[in-house]
Amino acid sequence: MIHSFPIRVYYEDTDLAGIVYYANYLKFIERGRSEFVRALGIDQTAMKAEGLVFAVTRVVADYRRPARYDDQLVVETTITRLTPVRMVMRQEVLRDETVLFEAEVTIACLNAMGKATKFREDMRAPLEENRLLD
Amino acid sequence: MIHSFPIRVYYEDTDLAGIVYYANYLKFIERGRSEFVRALGIDQTAMKAEGLVFAVTRVVADYRRPARYDDQLVVETTITRLTPVRMVMRQEVLRDETVLFEAEVTIACLNAMGKATKFREDMRAPLEENRLLD
Amino acid sequence: MIHSFPIRVYYEDTDLAGIVYYANYLKFIERGRSEFVRALGIDQTAMKAEGLVFAVTRVVADYRRPARYDDQLVVETTITRLTPVRMVMRQEVLRDETVLFEAEVTIACLNAMGKATKFREDMRAPLEENRLLD
Amino acid sequence: MIHSFPIRVYYEDTDLAGIVYYANYLKFIERGRSEFVRALGIDQTAMKAEGLVFAVTRVVADYRRPARYDDQLVVETTITRLTPVRMVMRQEVLRDETVLFEAEVTIACLNAMGKATKFREDMRAPLEENRLLD
Repeated sequence: MIHSFPIRVYYEDTDLAGIVYYANYLKFIERGRSEFVRALGIDQTAMKAEGLVFAVTRVVADYRRPARYDDQLVVETTITRLTPVRMVMRQEVLRDETVLFEAEVTIACLNAMGKATKFREDMRAPLEENRLLD
Repeated sequence: MIHSFPIRVYYEDTDLAGIVYYANYLKFIERGRSEFVRALGIDQTAMKAEGLVFAVTRVVADYRRPARYDDQLVVETTITRLTPVRMVMRQEVLRDETVLFEAEVTIACLNAMGKATKFREDMRAPLEENRLLD
Repeated sequence: MIHSFPIRVYYEDTDLAGIVYYANYLKFIERGRSEFVRALGIDQTAMKAEGLVFAVTRVVADYRRPARYDDQLVVETTITRLTPVRMVMRQEVLRDETVLFEAEVTIACLNAMGKATKFREDMRAPLEENRLLD
Repeated sequence: MIHSFPIRVYYEDTDLAGIVYYANYLKFIERGRSEFVRALGIDQTAMKAEGLVFAVTRVVADYRRPARYDDQLVVETTITRLTPVRMVMRQEVLRDETVLFEAEVTIACLNAMGKATKFREDMRAPLEENRLLD
């Protein structure tokens, strides 16, 4: 499954070069991931109440073309790998058909002590089900 | 006492108009307040561990002149009023002698239930001592 | 006319107190104003190309109740005053029927030299038409 | 040469997990790079006036351990590779001797049309001089 989430570029996202500031793409793709896991029925607020959080452990990001003020963008997210303790998502930010930004994001699940822990079965199952087959 | 804290303007602070984005002045003055209360011996991390946080309840902000990339600014902070449950700080952001931004910020102390509570004596005393007499 | 714009709270918006960081409400309401003026047919990108930008000159903001991660909020915006060189907007951030944040925002139109200038007729007319009568 | 730049963690940097939000490390290291190139005598404001900007084209980032509110951090930056059109910097964020975050950042120089262009000699020379020999 490819999850799509729309993003409008506002003043807050831009910098004096007139384009989206490079750190803000990580905000955009985090919104995309949040909506993806919500769509899969995973409740991050409930997880948090139990002391579990998704934590990014690695980002490999390529900046292809700049996004600008007022652009209407789309964040596309797919799960590409899933192990008992790690998930890798591939995310792209597009304007129309053009890829502006792409990233491979590795995510772990941390417990209340901040230690990496296995994905619980009720999280793992919907993630696995929606993993894109290579 | 007037507390002074230096701020350098980076890319992250600017927007496509080439100036500091209006919301970011609230970040600048929060850094100033954090360093002010630290200088007074109030430990916000210890407060947080006891369930107490300072919360802004009101901001009146005037934008006088724009700050730009690479500007070296100063945040000046004074305590102007102190009641058992409220503190008012006056804060200015200056470049050299020019006031670019000024704000009056009202702050309450919230307990673990998120309810406004009296400033504890070990907080109130240093704040009162450093209140600027009108 | 009351303009409504939905906002979802993401991780990026929160702070360690578990609530939306106070500066981020200014981002939320700027998104609301951007969508409002777009709905009125005012093109801020075209304005920018002609050297004109809307600039906030004053914010009076009251923080009523905290917003939290995952909250679905609404930004409501109305124009309450309009002079040849100033516009005042009243903005609220609500969760269901509860007002969490409210602000009165004063806006000027700056020209390429950064000087306040009269609203051009093609901007003023739609703003005036949608001004809420007191 | 290893360039060191201190960073204090403020409320604005944290998220509801109580740690520094993952996108904000990119802000921290951009501050470090800005101060590094300033120390080398490269004036980014003057560059901008001539239509030249440094643009990040790739980030490979590893999140090792979380930084927390009030932490005093250091950003360490070295130039590891330099070609006529690309520069690679290695950057680490440390608390005391512990590496919390590390990144390899690839940077190009863009001209007014947004096209990658060769580093001008007055930029290239100080960068080359301070490149860390492998």
